[in-house]
Amino acid sequence: MTPSGIITLTTDFGRRDPYVAMMKGVILSINRGARIVDITHQIAAGSIAEGASILKDAHRFFPSGTVHVGVVDPGVGGPRRPIAVVAENYFFVGPDNGLFWPLIEADGQCDVIRLTHERYWMNKISATFHGRDIFAPVAAHLSQGVAPSAMGEAIDDPMPLQVPLPRKEGSALAGEVVRIDRFGNLITNISREHLAPFLESKDLIIRIGGVVLQTLSTTYSDVPEAQPLALIGSSNALEIAVNRGNAAHDLGGQCRVGTAVVVDFGHSTTH
Amino acid sequence: MTPSGIITLTTDFGRRDPYVAMMKGVILSINRGARIVDITHQIAAGSIAEGASILKDAHRFFPSGTVHVGVVDPGVGGPRRPIAVVAENYFFVGPDNGLFWPLIEADGQCDVIRLTHERYWMNKISATFHGRDIFAPVAAHLSQGVAPSAMGEAIDDPMPLQVPLPRKEGSALAGEVVRIDRFGNLITNISREHLAPFLESKDLIIRIGGVVLQTLSTTYSDVPEAQPLALIGSSNALEIAVNRGNAAHDLGGQCRVGTAVVVDFGHSTTH
Amino acid sequence: MTPSGIITLTTDFGRRDPYVAMMKGVILSINRGARIVDITHQIAAGSIAEGASILKDAHRFFPSGTVHVGVVDPGVGGPRRPIAVVAENYFFVGPDNGLFWPLIEADGQCDVIRLTHERYWMNKISATFHGRDIFAPVAAHLSQGVAPSAMGEAIDDPMPLQVPLPRKEGSALAGEVVRIDRFGNLITNISREHLAPFLESKDLIIRIGGVVLQTLSTTYSDVPEAQPLALIGSSNALEIAVNRGNAAHDLGGQCRVGTAVVVDFGHSTTH
Repeated sequence: MTPSGIITLTTDFGRRDPYVAMMKGVILSINRGARIVDITHQIAAGSIAEGASILKDAHRFFPSGTVHVGVVDPGVGGPRRPIAVVAENYFFVGPDNGLFWPLIEADGQCDVIRLTHERYWMNKISATFHGRDIFAPVAAHLSQGVAPSAMGEAIDDPMPLQVPLPRKEGSALAGEVVRIDRFGNLITNISREHLAPFLESKDLIIRIGGVVLQTLSTTYSDVPEAQPLALIGSSNALEIAVNRGNAAHDLGGQCRVGTAVVVDFGHSTTH
Repeated sequence: MTPSGIITLTTDFGRRDPYVAMMKGVILSINRGARIVDITHQIAAGSIAEGASILKDAHRFFPSGTVHVGVVDPGVGGPRRPIAVVAENYFFVGPDNGLFWPLIEADGQCDVIRLTHERYWMNKISATFHGRDIFAPVAAHLSQGVAPSAMGEAIDDPMPLQVPLPRKEGSALAGEVVRIDRFGNLITNISREHLAPFLESKDLIIRIGGVVLQTLSTTYSDVPEAQPLALIGSSNALEIAVNRGNAAHDLGGQCRVGTAVVVDFGHSTTH
Repeated sequence: MTPSGIITLTTDFGRRDPYVAMMKGVILSINRGARIVDITHQIAAGSIAEGASILKDAHRFFPSGTVHVGVVDPGVGGPRRPIAVVAENYFFVGPDNGLFWPLIEADGQCDVIRLTHERYWMNKISATFHGRDIFAPVAAHLSQGVAPSAMGEAIDDPMPLQVPLPRKEGSALAGEVVRIDRFGNLITNISREHLAPFLESKDLIIRIGGVVLQTLSTTYSDVPEAQPLALIGSSNALEIAVNRGNAAHDLGGQCRVGTAVVVDFGHSTTH
C-alpha cells in the first residue's frame, strides 16, 4: 500500500486544549508535507465504543494509503499496547483497547503490529500523552513510507470490543440507538444489510419509545414537517428522525444512546 | 476564472459527527492537492439565513477562484435542486434554497448551473447527505478546472431568500440584530452604506432594548469598561457591544437575533 | 531563521463565527502555500493569561521557523501596539498586551518589533479586527521570508504579564490551578522544575480542596478507577486527576482555576 500522505485524527481531546495541535506539530516536524484532517475530537471522554463507531464509518471516504490515528486512550501509560494496524487500504495507529476492533474484524486480513521501536517515537515519552509522543510520530513515519514491520512485532491477539448487535426476536429485529447526531437523528445498530432480506415486502413496523412508524422513508421530506420517520441514513444504518426537527428532543426526550429500536417484519402478514 | 485550488466549507453539521470529515475525504480522493478551509460548521441547524449571512461576509477574503461549498440543506433529497453558482471571482456549490441568494443578488451577473451530470458525483447517492455525495465531489472537480457548464444546465430562476432590510421611518432607520458573535456583540442589518449619508452630522441616537447611545464609536475601548457602545464593526455593519463585556448578556439579556435597533438621525436638529 | 511555511493560530474567536476563516483567507491570499494549523480558538474571551499559557505549552512542538499568531486582544483599536517577536526558533505575531511575555522571558534574547509598516497589512484596517487586517497578513509575509525588521521598529519595552508563580511556605510549595482540561484534569503552575529538588525523597503530601494525596503517581491507572491522584502531566506541570474520572467534577466540584494546591515536602521528616 502506497501512503497517500494524508493523516486523519480521531480523538476525545476536544478543541479547547492544545493537545490536538501538539500532535499536528509533531507530525509536521517529521513530515512537512503531510495533509492532516480532523475526523472529530469530540468523542465522549474515554468512550472507546463511540470512537470505534466513528472510525468505522468515516475512514473509508479517504484515499487508499491514508493513515488514520485514533486516540481514545483511558488506559494510557498502563499495560495496554500501542499498535499499528495494516488493513487492505488503510493504516490505523493508536492504543490496543478495542478502538480498531470493528475495522480489524471487517477487514479479516489485517496485520497488527505492536509498536516497540522507540526510534520512531518522540525522544521523551510522557506517561500520559502517547497520542503526541508515540502515535503522532509513528503516523508521520508511516505517511512517509516507513514499513510498519520496521516499527515493532506482529501480534495476533488484538483486544476485541463488545459491540451491541441487533437480535432476532420472532418476526422482529431488536436493536438500539448507538449514536445521536447534531440534528438529533437517532442512528441505530441496524444496518441496511440487516434489513435487506425484508425490504421487498415493505410490511414492517418500527417501534422506538412510544413511537410507531409504519413505513421506511427515503428522505426526511417524505413526511410533513415535525413528523417522525425512519430511513436508512447516509451511513447505511436505520435512523429515526423528525423532518426539520430533532428526534432526540421531539420524541418525548426519552430516546438516547442505548434506547431499544424494534423492527417488526411479520405484522401485516400474521394478522 | 482560474481555480485557486482552495475549497471552503460552510455547514450546519457541527464538529462532533464525522460528516465534515467525510466530505473532506471525498474531496481529497478526487483532488489530492486541494486546500480545504472550514468557514464554520456551527450554523444553527437548518438556518439558511444564518448560513447565507456568514457566506456573504466571509467569502471575499479568499483568493479569486476559490470554491465555496455551502451545505445548510433541510430539504435534502426532496425537490430542491443542487446548483453551482459562478460569480465574478468565486464558485459556490450547494442546494438551491436561498443560501447563495445574497451573493447572486450582489454579483448581478452570476451563472447558475443546475447540477445534473452524475459522472461528477459519488457513485452511490444517498438521499440524505448530498454534501458528501454531490457537493463535495463537484467542488473537487471545479477546483481542478472542470467547467461548470459541463456539470449541468444553466437556470435563471434560483430560489430567492427573504432577508430583513432596515426600513426608513421618518428621521430614523429601523433595523434589527441579525447575528450575535462569540463576544456577545450584536451585529445588525444596518450597513456602513445605510449610515453613510448621515455620518457627517454625527447627530444620531441609537436605541436598542432600553439602551440609548448618543454617538458612534470607533473601537471598543472608546468607552469605559463595561459601558455599551455602537460602532461599525469589521463586517461593515452597525454593531452594539460592551467594552470588555458581552452585550448579549449585559444589556438586560433581552437582546437577541431579531431585536429592533433604531438609528435616529433627526433628533438634535428637529428639537 | 528559515521560515517553515507553517502558521499557527491561537485566538479567543471560537469556531462559530467566520473570524478565523477570514484570517485564513487573508493568509492564503498572500501565501498560497502556507500550512495553517489551529492551536485553539477557545481561549476564554479576553483572557490574555490563558492564551499566554497555551502558547507557551504548544509552540515548541512545531518545526523551527513556524509563525505563531496569537490574537486575544480586548484592547484592539486602542493604544496597545501590534508586534512581531523573533525568538530563537519561532516568530510570534499579535498584540503587545502580555500574550507573548512568558515566551519573551523564557527566550531571553528576543527581538521585538513594533509593526508600523502598513504595506504589509490589509489595504483597509478596521478598528476592531487587527487579527484579520494586520496580524494575518504580517504572518503570511513572515512565512514567505520577509524580514521582521522590514515591518517596523525594534522596541525594548514589551508589555509584561503577571503570571502567578508558586510560593515557598516553610517546607511547602503553594501554587494554584491554572487550567482545567477537557478531561477535568487540574493543571497547576507547579512545574517539574519546581518539584525536582524534592522528587528524590518522595516524602511529599499534596493538598487541594479537602483532598490529601500522599504520593506522586506516574500515570492515571496507577490508582484504582474513580480515585484521585497527582502526577507530572504531559506539559511538565503538576496535575491533579481522577483515574477514568473528571477531577474538576469529582473532587467536590470546588476545584477551579485559582484553587490553591499545596505540596508539602517536610511532612514525614519533621514528624
